[in-house]
Amino acid sequence: MGVPDLLEQAVEPGEYAGRLRRVRAALGERGIGALVVSDPANLFYLTGYDAWSFYTPQCLLVPADGEPHLFARAMDAAGASYTCNLRDDQIHGYPEDLVHRPDVHPYDWIAGMARDLIPAGGDVAVEADAHFFSARGYLALGNGLPGHRLVDSAELVNWIRLVKSPHELRQLRIAGSIAENAMRIALDQLQPGKRQCDLVAEILAAQATGTPEHGGDYPAIVPMLPTGDAAGTPHLTWTDRPFVSGEATTIELAGVFGRYHAPLARTVMLGDPPQRLRETSKIVAEGMRATLSTIRAGVTGSVVHAAFNDVIAAHGLVKDSRIGYSIGIGYPPDWGERTVSLRPGETTVLTAGMAFHVILGMWMDGWGYELSEPVVVTEDGAERLTGLPHELTIRR
Amino acid sequence: MGVPDLLEQAVEPGEYAGRLRRVRAALGERGIGALVVSDPANLFYLTGYDAWSFYTPQCLLVPADGEPHLFARAMDAAGASYTCNLRDDQIHGYPEDLVHRPDVHPYDWIAGMARDLIPAGGDVAVEADAHFFSARGYLALGNGLPGHRLVDSAELVNWIRLVKSPHELRQLRIAGSIAENAMRIALDQLQPGKRQCDLVAEILAAQATGTPEHGGDYPAIVPMLPTGDAAGTPHLTWTDRPFVSGEATTIELAGVFGRYHAPLARTVMLGDPPQRLRETSKIVAEGMRATLSTIRAGVTGSVVHAAFNDVIAAHGLVKDSRIGYSIGIGYPPDWGERTVSLRPGETTVLTAGMAFHVILGMWMDGWGYELSEPVVVTEDGAERLTGLPHELTIRR
Repeated sequence: MGVPDLLEQAVEPGEYAGRLRRVRAALGERGIGALVVSDPANLFYLTGYDAWSFYTPQCLLVPADGEPHLFARAMDAAGASYTCNLRDDQIHGYPEDLVHRPDVHPYDWIAGMARDLIPAGGDVAVEADAHFFSARGYLALGNGLPGHRLVDSAELVNWIRLVKSPHELRQLRIAGSIAENAMRIALDQLQPGKRQCDLVAEILAAQATGTPEHGGDYPAIVPMLPTGDAAGTPHLTWTDRPFVSGEATTIELAGVFGRYHAPLARTVMLGDPPQRLRETSKIVAEGMRATLSTIRAGVTGSVVHAAFNDVIAAHGLVKDSRIGYSIGIGYPPDWGERTVSLRPGETTVLTAGMAFHVILGMWMDGWGYELSEPVVVTEDGAERLTGLPHELTIRR
Repeated sequence: MGVPDLLEQAVEPGEYAGRLRRVRAALGERGIGALVVSDPANLFYLTGYDAWSFYTPQCLLVPADGEPHLFARAMDAAGASYTCNLRDDQIHGYPEDLVHRPDVHPYDWIAGMARDLIPAGGDVAVEADAHFFSARGYLALGNGLPGHRLVDSAELVNWIRLVKSPHELRQLRIAGSIAENAMRIALDQLQPGKRQCDLVAEILAAQATGTPEHGGDYPAIVPMLPTGDAAGTPHLTWTDRPFVSGEATTIELAGVFGRYHAPLARTVMLGDPPQRLRETSKIVAEGMRATLSTIRAGVTGSVVHAAFNDVIAAHGLVKDSRIGYSIGIGYPPDWGERTVSLRPGETTVLTAGMAFHVILGMWMDGWGYELSEPVVVTEDGAERLTGLPHELTIRR
């Protein structure tokens, strides 16, 4: 029995092998002997492993030559085969008494196992800026592999994830339909007198329910809806304060299917919008049109950014932060891939199958406006993953 | 306006000062010049800072002598004062162009700022095993502070969080009432034919709604409900498969108020339970009674574990993993404090005001059973934070 629906959503046979082949080729090019993958999104990409087990150390060891091996806490290793595309003898559980100890660390044990699996003397790449590979884990791994030099993978797997396969694009489109449903509910149900937490309850339910055909998965980030003057800052979560007339709320959420994320942001005004908000929303909508009509295979991220910037600069507006980033698989605390950004100086050339969250967030002093769109790059344009209009929602 | 309800929930004046005093005293005892706090739960504990901004580097620098300083991405620093109990001149935003770059890192910039704020030559403690302080951040900080040695804080702030103040106990009790509501809904609404994701939608909504008086906050972990033979593993998240008669489901969730967590686990059987499940549930309930009647100020964590173990051993059962851990403030991906565990060898003596999640998870080969209770240690016992019965729920 197990969880067969997870397998139904899984990648076609051969796709995991192809992904691993590309990782090994990149290791070979850089002369690296093995890679230690600890980012849960990269683990999922390479093996399908999916569980809320990333709060204790876990990793996939990928030798440049040889089979990958998964290391996780014993209680998690025991259930890894429900989702993980590896044989049981490639899955190793470290003992429970290594968890949260001041004197020993799971990476002491992992290093001991790794010594027999990697070529002598070769460099070992680690995901040095990943969220769930701690400084202590890094030091323990280094101490346990004295004949090896640890080097930074520089997001090696993340870069390989950049161009999506047909399977991945299908997942993203379903995620888009879930995001659109959830945002429609948020825009419809935001009303004066309703507590923020009660609106969030409706959003969370819509994200999990998904569609009748496709249940929703959990987002890497909870819904964010800074309200009133707090809308000048992007990452505040909800409170139990009621919404009140005269205030605007920015809403950022994602639809998720099988760990693939389609993030989406909109802004709602309760009552008559101030002139500055009305004007900003029109400028940003014009900026979105310019941005989406620039995105296509062959342009760089900086060219896309310039298209937006030219529009807002003509209206005297300035935005310091990037206007988008690559998306795909996501785990808390972030749904971005940490590779390509749409910003000045970004030299990566877009190709068909890349996916971006174009997010035009204008965070001002005491107010804000957000409009976003998840898109897939095609040969001749941008495929939108959601279909909501690009205007400020006004509820009177 | 801002978010005044957050302030209403906030700690009394003077409590932050007392917390900082205890951190500084601990630094003084260990001869450490400054502490770099990057765990979001510790940031919240020391300053009230609360935002979903921990996916980019952020930290609180606490000199042994001198005021603390918060460092965050510029767009987050701009809104930090909504929740953070620091003056504007103690909050510093690093430039946007340091985000997700291969050649520069936010901790290069933070180290540069820190040089002027910490005593020359002193050791600097870092949270080396915290989730959001990466290996690369650690290396950048070390390179940027060449006159200092980086040492592991060994969860210094986490240990100071162990005994809760009266304010914190009030938050935990409210969290308990939210957990109880959410679990009651889960137990009532789990039905054959309902998709797992649709039950999760009801749980998530209950967690956010909270109570009419107190809105719920987001949990550090999403609801986990492994079903059927997958219930033999604890950390699988939901799918869109329907529940079916003849299968048991373990449910683990938390009620959260103002970042304080009351986790709770129960098990539901659809249809007649197999004999092994029925027997295990009775043994575990007996084990829970023994455990709760042992918890009180003055006993060690290992004594509590032994009380449970004696009961199950008498019935021929074995459990390798700990039966509980300290709880309080939580951020993804974990609601545990990573300090005291209820397990063999735990020498910490319990004192009044500590809080634990007693979780009796029996993960067997192809099936499982979970029963848990969040409790506060008192002088003469354990105060339960929720009031649900301790038996297997059977739905026919």
